[in-house]
Formats: sequence, C-alpha cells, structure tokens
Amino acid sequence: LPSMQTSGSKPCPCPSFKLREVASMYFTMIAVFLVILVVALQGSVPRRSDFPYKVPLDPQGLLELSWNVSYPEQAVHFQLLVRDLQFGLLFGMSDRGEFENADLAVLWSDGHNSYFGDAWSDAKGQLHMDLQQDYQLLGARRAPEGLYLLFRRAFSTCDPKDYLIEDGTVHLIYGILEKPVHSLQAINISAIHRGLQRVQLLKPNITVPELPSDMKTMEITAPDVVIPSQETTYWCYMAELPDGFPKHHIIMYEPVITAGNEALVHHMEVFQCAAEFDTFPHYNGPCDSKMKPDRLNYCRHVLAAWAMGAQAFYYPEEAGLAFGGPGSSRYLRLEVHYHNPLVLKGRHDSSGIRLYYTATLRRYDAGIMELGLVYTPVMAIPPGEDAFILTGYCTDKCTRLALPAAGIHIFASQLHTHLAGRKVVTVLSRDGRERQVVNADGHYSPHFQEIRMLKEVVAVFPGDELITTCTYNTEDRSQATVGGFGILEEMCVNYVHYYPQTQLELCKSAVDPGYLHRYFNLVNRFNDEEVCMCPQVSVPQQFFSIPWNTFNRDVLKSLYGFAPISMHCNKSSAIRFPGEWEKQPLPVTTERLREPVPRCPPAPGARPATPVPLNLGQLRRD
Amino acid sequence: LPSMQTSGSKPCPCPSFKLREVASMYFTMIAVFLVILVVALQGSVPRRSDFPYKVPLDPQGLLELSWNVSYPEQAVHFQLLVRDLQFGLLFGMSDRGEFENADLAVLWSDGHNSYFGDAWSDAKGQLHMDLQQDYQLLGARRAPEGLYLLFRRAFSTCDPKDYLIEDGTVHLIYGILEKPVHSLQAINISAIHRGLQRVQLLKPNITVPELPSDMKTMEITAPDVVIPSQETTYWCYMAELPDGFPKHHIIMYEPVITAGNEALVHHMEVFQCAAEFDTFPHYNGPCDSKMKPDRLNYCRHVLAAWAMGAQAFYYPEEAGLAFGGPGSSRYLRLEVHYHNPLVLKGRHDSSGIRLYYTATLRRYDAGIMELGLVYTPVMAIPPGEDAFILTGYCTDKCTRLALPAAGIHIFASQLHTHLAGRKVVTVLSRDGRERQVVNADGHYSPHFQEIRMLKEVVAVFPGDELITTCTYNTEDRSQATVGGFGILEEMCVNYVHYYPQTQLELCKSAVDPGYLHRYFNLVNRFNDEEVCMCPQVSVPQQFFSIPWNTFNRDVLKSLYGFAPISMHCNKSSAIRFPGEWEKQPLPVTTERLREPVPRCPPAPGARPATPVPLNLGQLRRD
Repeated sequence: LPSMQTSGSKPCPCPSFKLREVASMYFTMIAVFLVILVVALQGSVPRRSDFPYKVPLDPQGLLELSWNVSYPEQAVHFQLLVRDLQFGLLFGMSDRGEFENADLAVLWSDGHNSYFGDAWSDAKGQLHMDLQQDYQLLGARRAPEGLYLLFRRAFSTCDPKDYLIEDGTVHLIYGILEKPVHSLQAINISAIHRGLQRVQLLKPNITVPELPSDMKTMEITAPDVVIPSQETTYWCYMAELPDGFPKHHIIMYEPVITAGNEALVHHMEVFQCAAEFDTFPHYNGPCDSKMKPDRLNYCRHVLAAWAMGAQAFYYPEEAGLAFGGPGSSRYLRLEVHYHNPLVLKGRHDSSGIRLYYTATLRRYDAGIMELGLVYTPVMAIPPGEDAFILTGYCTDKCTRLALPAAGIHIFASQLHTHLAGRKVVTVLSRDGRERQVVNADGHYSPHFQEIRMLKEVVAVFPGDELITTCTYNTEDRSQATVGGFGILEEMCVNYVHYYPQTQLELCKSAVDPGYLHRYFNLVNRFNDEEVCMCPQVSVPQQFFSIPWNTFNRDVLKSLYGFAPISMHCNKSSAIRFPGEWEKQPLPVTTERLREPVPRCPPAPGARPATPVPLNLGQLRRD
Repeated sequence: LPSMQTSGSKPCPCPSFKLREVASMYFTMIAVFLVILVVALQGSVPRRSDFPYKVPLDPQGLLELSWNVSYPEQAVHFQLLVRDLQFGLLFGMSDRGEFENADLAVLWSDGHNSYFGDAWSDAKGQLHMDLQQDYQLLGARRAPEGLYLLFRRAFSTCDPKDYLIEDGTVHLIYGILEKPVHSLQAINISAIHRGLQRVQLLKPNITVPELPSDMKTMEITAPDVVIPSQETTYWCYMAELPDGFPKHHIIMYEPVITAGNEALVHHMEVFQCAAEFDTFPHYNGPCDSKMKPDRLNYCRHVLAAWAMGAQAFYYPEEAGLAFGGPGSSRYLRLEVHYHNPLVLKGRHDSSGIRLYYTATLRRYDAGIMELGLVYTPVMAIPPGEDAFILTGYCTDKCTRLALPAAGIHIFASQLHTHLAGRKVVTVLSRDGRERQVVNADGHYSPHFQEIRMLKEVVAVFPGDELITTCTYNTEDRSQATVGGFGILEEMCVNYVHYYPQTQLELCKSAVDPGYLHRYFNLVNRFNDEEVCMCPQVSVPQQFFSIPWNTFNRDVLKSLYGFAPISMHCNKSSAIRFPGEWEKQPLPVTTERLREPVPRCPPAPGARPATPVPLNLGQLRRD
C-alpha cells in the first residue's frame, strides 16, 4: 500500500521562497491538514491494477504513466512510475506538446525537502504556482523499480490556467530535474531533459463483448527485425494467409510488443492487399527502400491498427471484420513505425498485431467508409494560416441512396490528414440540424493516427449528412498547400468503421471546379495581378501563382463556404452510385451543436496555492 | 433599519411545489440558517443614502431602482423600492431587454408565504430556479412608500445561466405579479405586466474635482411644456445667452427634472448653434413639427447631454468646455426626449439641464472629436445579418499631424449609431498593438446614447491609432443598409471629449471607392447576375441591386478588411489637414487586446438552489 509521511510537524528548513510562495505559506496549515487527510484516505486510493492504460513517456522508459478514467467523477487518476528519481520531475499537458502555456504537476527537491504542486508555464515558459491546486496528490510510495506518484485531475477545472482534458489526443509533456532547485520559479524549463508523448487519455468505457469459444489467434509480427539506428523507420513485412483460408471474422486484435521495446514501437498497421492480384512478393525491410516491390502499394485496405497507449480493439458483438475466403487477397502487409530518437543500435524487435478471429461468422460484416474530402488539388490551404478550415461532405442524397433503411452503426473511427492537420471533427446532421459528434479531435496530430472506438455507437440513416471538418496550420509554408496524396499535400479524411457493411465505400466531396475557375478569374481581376488562368496550367500551378493577401485568402474561404460541390458517392472499386453528383448544393446547417459548457465540480480537496511538503528522504543517494 | 422575519420556525403550509423545488427543499434548513445570518448581518447592509444612482423602472414609477457599485468587491448592491406590491415581482437583466434567456431575481407569493430566489428564463421564457443563487438577498423592509428589497450581485458569477455585468449599457427588465403564484415555474412570463429600462450600471468611480468659488449656474429648461399624449416626443426649445456674454468654461452640468416626471423624461441635450448665423429664431415645440424653422438644424454642437440614470457630468480639473465670447453663437437649443408609453395626458414639464460655469478659465479648453466612419454609402451592411461589423479608423498619419507632442486626454465618450447598431467599441492602438479600450458598449442601444465619463482618462499621442468598430443587426431588413444621415441609413461614431482642444474635429475613414467599384464588378461576374455598374447609378442603388448570398456578403466583409481607405482628417469647418488622404493603407493590428477573463470570486453566502422563505405578511391587503 502507498505510504507517505508529511513534514508538517517537523521544523521546516526554509528554502529561498519567492514572494508568491511566501504569501502562500499562509495556507500551509490547511495544506498540511489536507495531506494528513489524504494519508487517512489512502485506503480508497486505486490500486496499481486499477490503472488499465499504460504508456512510457520518454524514449528510455524512465517515466511510465498508467491511468484510469472515471466518467462519473469526470476525473483521471494517474500513477506515474519514476524509475531513477533525481531532483524531481514535471508532468503535464499542453495544446500541442509545447512547454509554454502548459499545465503542469511538479515534484521538486531542494536537496533536503521535496514538494509537489500544480503549476503552469507562461508564454515564455516561466513556471508559476497555480492559485488553484487541481493536480491532487493522492499518495507516493517507493518500490524497488522506482517512485510511484499517485494523483488525480478533473477533466475540467474552470481554472483558466488549466488544460481542459477532452476526447481525442492529449499531448503529455514531461521533464526531469537533474539538479536541486530551491523553488518552482527557479526551474529553467528550457534547460532540462524533457519531451512529449501523445495519448488518448479519455479512453471510452467499452463493455468487452463476449468472445466465442472457437476463437483462434494469428500473430502478424515482424520476424526478428534489427531496428535501424535512425529516428524514424517504417518497416514493411509481407505475411500470407494459408492457401484456401475461408472467410472468417476478426472480432478483436491487440498489440504484441517485444519486451523492452515499449518506447520504440510507435504504431503498427496490418493491411490487406488488393484482390485483383493473385500473388504478392515477399518483403521484409524498410517501407521506403528502393528494394521494396511496387506491388506492395496495392496493400492498403486496413485490417487492424494500433498506436502507443491503445489497448485491444474489440468489434461490437453483432459484427466482425471479414477476411479470408474467395474475393479477398491472401496477402497481408504489416507496417511498423519505429520511433528511435536516441538512435539506439542493435535493438531486435518482433512486434506486431495478434488477430483474434472466428469461423462462426457474426451477424454482420463490418465495413470501412471514407468520409471527408476527395484527394484533389481544388481544395487548397493558403500559406501562413494558423487555422484554416476545409470541410468535406457526405450528403443526404448519397446516404439516401446507399444506406439501408435500418441505418448503419459507426463504432470506430480513424482520423487522417497529412502534416498540416491540427483538428478533425465529423458531425452527423439531420434535416440541417447538427445532432451528434461522430468523432472529434481538437488536438489532432498527424503523428498519432489511431483507430478509436467511439464512446457511443452512432446510428446513421438514409438522408443523414456526415460533415467532416479539418483545421490546418500552414504558418511555416510560403506556398499554397493543395489536396493530394503527397506528404506535403493535404487530406481530410475520417475512416469510419461500421456495420452492416454496405456498398458505399467513399462519401466525400470537393468544391465544383467551375466555381474555382471563377475564383482564379476574380483574384486575377481584383488584384491587377497576373494569375495564369490558361486552361493548360494545372490547378496547383494556379494556386501557386496567387499573390496571397487577406482578401484572396478570405475570398477563398467564402468560395468554399458557398460554391456547389462535386460529390464522390462511390461503391467499391471507385464506381459512383448512379445519379447526378456534379454541382450539388452545399448542405445548409440551420442549427449547430452547442459547445459543451465545462462542468466544474469543486474538486474534493482542491486547495489554495501552496506546495505540499513531502518527506521522501534525500532523493538522490549518490 | 431593515427588518425581516423568517418563516423557518413555523409549520410550512405546502404549496404545489414541482419536482425541482421539492428536491431543493433539502437545502431549506441551510437557507433558513443563512436568512437568520443575513438578518444578523443587517447592520452592515448599506443605508439608503449609500445608493447614489437611481432610475425608475416602469413608466408609472411603481418600481424604483437605486444602486451602488463596489469595484473592490466587483459587485453591485441594489435597492428596489416596490410602491404597490401585489404578489411579487421580477427584476433582472438580459442581453437586449428580452425576457427569454434572462437572468432574474424573483419575489413571489402564493398568497400566504413569500419567496425570493435567483432564477433564469430559457429560450421559451420559462422560468427556472438557478442552481447557484447569485442574487443575494440582504434584507427587506416595509416603509410608508412601499417595500424595499436589498440585494447584491457580483459583476461576474461564472454561472452560465447568469448575465455578466459589464461596462456600458445594461438592459434591466422587470415584471409585476398581480396574482398569487404557487411556484416559480407557474409564472407565465408573457402574461404579466412587464417592461425594460436601460442604464449604465457600472458607473465610473470618479473623484469629483474641486469647484471654483466663482461658479455660477444657468438653467436651460423647457418653459412649462405640456407633454404631448403620444409615446415619443422630441421637444425643441431655443434659449439665448445674454448679449455680450464673454467666454466661460462649463465645468459641470446636471439634469433638472420636474418632480413626478422622472419616468417620462428619457434624455436631454443642449446644443450650441453655428456661429455663422447672427441670429436664430425663437422656438418652443416638437422638433419634428413643420412649424420648426429650418435654421434650427444648424444647432448641432453638443454642449451637454443627459440620459436616464445619469448623474451630474464633471469636467476634469484641468479643463472646461468653452462657451460665450466672440466666435461662438449666443443661441442654444434644448432637446428633450419625452417617453410616454402610457400616453398620459396633460402632464406639465419644465425639465432641462443646469450648467455650472466659471469666468476663471481653466488651463485647457475641452474639445470634442468625431471618430469612426464617414457618413457615406460606400460603407454598407447586407440585409439579414445578425452581427455585421464595420470599422472606422483614425490613422497614425492623422494623429501624427494633428495632435500635440504631449498628447491629448480623452475623459468622456458618446457612442452613436442609427437603429441597426448593437455594439460599439473604440480601441487605442500603438505600433499595431492594441493597448487600451477607450470606450466599449457590448449591449449598445441607439435609444440610449449618453455621454459617459471614462473610468480612466485615455492619453492619445501623435502616431496612435483609434479604431472604432460597430456591430449591426439587419435581420429585419430586406435591402442593404448604407451609410448616411437618414434614420434607416447607418452611422458608426464615437464623439470623444478630450483636452486640450486641437484643430482636429473629425478623424474618420471609409473604404476606397475604387475598390468598392471592383467589388461590384466582381459580384457581377461571379454570380452571373446583372448588378448595374453604370457610373450614373448611385452607390446605394448598386448595393440595393446586389443579390445577397453568403458569398457576396463574405466578399464584402473581406473587402472592408482589405481595401485601402479614404481618410477624413479634418479641421473645423470640414477642411482637411494638408496631405494625401486617399487610398491609405488599412492599419494593421498585430496584437489584439485579450478578452478579460471574468473573475469569479466565490460570492459570500452563494447558496444552493432553494427559494428563501420570507415572512412579509399577506402582501395584498384588499
């Protein structure tokens, strides 16, 4: 059980407190009382097994975070294992992993005494004690493997200095104090060993469906790869289903990580290859190697995907993902992203994904549908934008034609953009009124693209609209970013996983090219500039020649918010459903979903600003 | 002294409480305790003389509100006199005086017991008890003239159901309960006698300057007017300074209201006539009468202005407003706006303004400068807009030329728009960075245009920019609203009162007409519509012929945010300062002022949602 002693009853050797801390000493009596209270309450502190989610924070695995989520309490309980504690550490959250304007829990030691407090960093990275202490220390204990810190944080605190924990990606940040510090303010945040880790903190509270007795497993794992000594490697490995393998349902999958490589294996995906080709070559090597056979580019149908911090993925009880059998390829491609920033050498790895499948087919095949924007240069983002928004539509006309009367059920979603993506959200709209968020990530990172199970299954009926909005940052670019497949081009996609499977594989839109032409025309005349509009010049070239100013930028925004769209309402193999899909009216939204007002339950034991003294002994014993 | 008894110790006859109230009975014990506490605290309740501001709420004067403002506490104390209490009343605030989405304090009686509570109304006007009680009842007492209710409200409560009390106009609403009601929810807000009153609640905390011993007074008052029996009358009366009246400084003025007419006299202004004319005819009659001599239109230079709820106006110690002497007209025009919604007949009135002036001239003459937009149709608002923004600039180039090196000091401001105006704000910007709000009204009403003393005098130096932004609502209009003098045309003006007086009378802007022409051109081509652009057609006609859609609207916004401006940097008598003022670059703002984060001090005694029982006896005694 956790144990903790307070130093409250001992005379306190006074370190060099700054004014703010001195002022806060006033509250120390209360704080001490609360610490005693906390100790008394420790019977109710969650045990280690109560933290189902785990992620290493740093590439060496010195800091290991476990956590659980209490939706009734609207709070997260953290357990942070510090393997080689020196003079303290910082742990916190910020918009995109930066150390400025961050919300931090700090454990620091002056060499004699240790303190824990809720802090924040200003726009220059200077640390300040928070007036309202919302990281609540619940306990600390030493174990052979290191120090365990247990603390709690409400999703929302209504303290403007605090980070609001929302669904989607959370950028966790950490820092390690290697020297004693005499006060919080004395910590120079830019001089410490630090880093970031992305996780989905608010995991959905899914009831695990019952698993069939005839369930089998299959491991798609890399065969003893030596992880290249470079920061980023995408490793490709081709696997093969047995000849004549009949149709099965994948009903669950989970990661298989080689012990010790937890901090190196960043994400993994298993793709099924295209059925058009009878065979695919074997391959085991980097995905960007010149030696990689071109045909591997036809292995793009996602069967399973995992990213750091994710757990096992379960299909809903009624559905499974079909694989095997006639009409589907026997060939699978495993892709492993190794993230090796310390450039470690000679590490062997056999990580991969374990598929759980059954021959007793479930009631429904699951399907994957692509929502958002068509991959076309007509959708472009001007340079120098901090938050430019593009929207892709799946219209009522398409869902009316393609979805069964009983509707479909979306149970998982994978958001996708290229490097400029910062936020992605898909909203379900019915009769022009936004009804429900399908999936939203306000801190989306292109470097962290998980398949996420939804908190609630979303039912979509014929006539519904699915509107996907992506926000991009192009502040570091000097030319327009157009839509397309290239890594410096952009996408706006939500791959939704649903059942029962339908013929609709793709429901996406783009602006009508005729209206875009009028835009080039208009920009040309308005600015007295020579924007080449000759038909032989490509759309990207036309975008690249625009002299970007606020007017041309704003009018492009207005165009995208006004012009009719070209719909891609497609069956498999890129065949459109019959109907007129050009120059379709832009869906009109008459009622928006309200932003949720953060609830701010007074945190039990939320305290005025004062560091809590801890007696952990002398931290470093050398 | 206030006295109040609680009904807590008596058996409580139970009225038909709805579920919510039943649930809240749980807290009654606490509430009763608090009421007792309040009674015990009543020694510290402000005395009547502690409420310096007073305004009648209804046209009959049945409800009279007095208040004070505590900036250290960030709270307003209200004293509401109810002259003929029946079964209760509603008092509250809402965005623009509507009874939906309003924040209310309610006193209601079921015929036996009376209750007081903080409530809110939803979008349909249904009342609900507020979960957080932020109108804090401090006391209640009966007096011969009626019942006094004393209560307190923090500026900001951080309760999303509460109104945020800000600088500028506050729309107060009231309702009178003429029948017993058995619960808060039973009040039908649309069936009661109700109304609104606009006030500046957060009066600035001005130190009254020392007044000279040779100070004289002059009353400019209407000579026994019979108030016309119609809702709205603007009454005009010509007054005259004595022949040979030398230059004096007005250093203060205050309203003179005929007793009993406090609810009828809405606002009053004293204008000085133009010096070009030697004489002006006498006149005493409605301002819109056909009998009114045309020459009175040349009496437009504001000397003094008062509106309901305003107190005396003091010039700063260093300055006075010059009047009299050579070069200024002897003629003054008094304009009184009578607001008589009950169409009372035969009411006599001699209200007006008392000027306090001195022959001992102060160090500086005060001046008035006009900021905002030029009165020109090139600045237009599309129809159907809920919040369209237009911005007028006083550029660095103009202030560099016209202001003294030591700067000027703005101490008061009068915001002005026509009927579509909803918000007005002027911000001081230096080197592209917004520094200070000069004056802001987020609930501006064209029906309530006071000269307001600023909380802080604003120093403006050569090279500073003054940016005035107006927000308009044209949801009820089907055609564009263009700039101009007409009541259905619009203005965006801030008359700032400052010292020392300079030659700069007008510092305003409008979009460059050439760029507007390009806009008409662009709209024409983009929409394939026939917008007549023939040069013989006026700008308003061109605006009226635009087919308004989101694109044409958005592009107009973009135009106003991009196109160069034409500056009016004018001396008196409409003469521009020398220099090039056409096609000036739009000022660029690189750093905006942050929205202030509302402070939410925990209100002492803020209570969970429960009505406070009061024993006021049977309210109606008939």
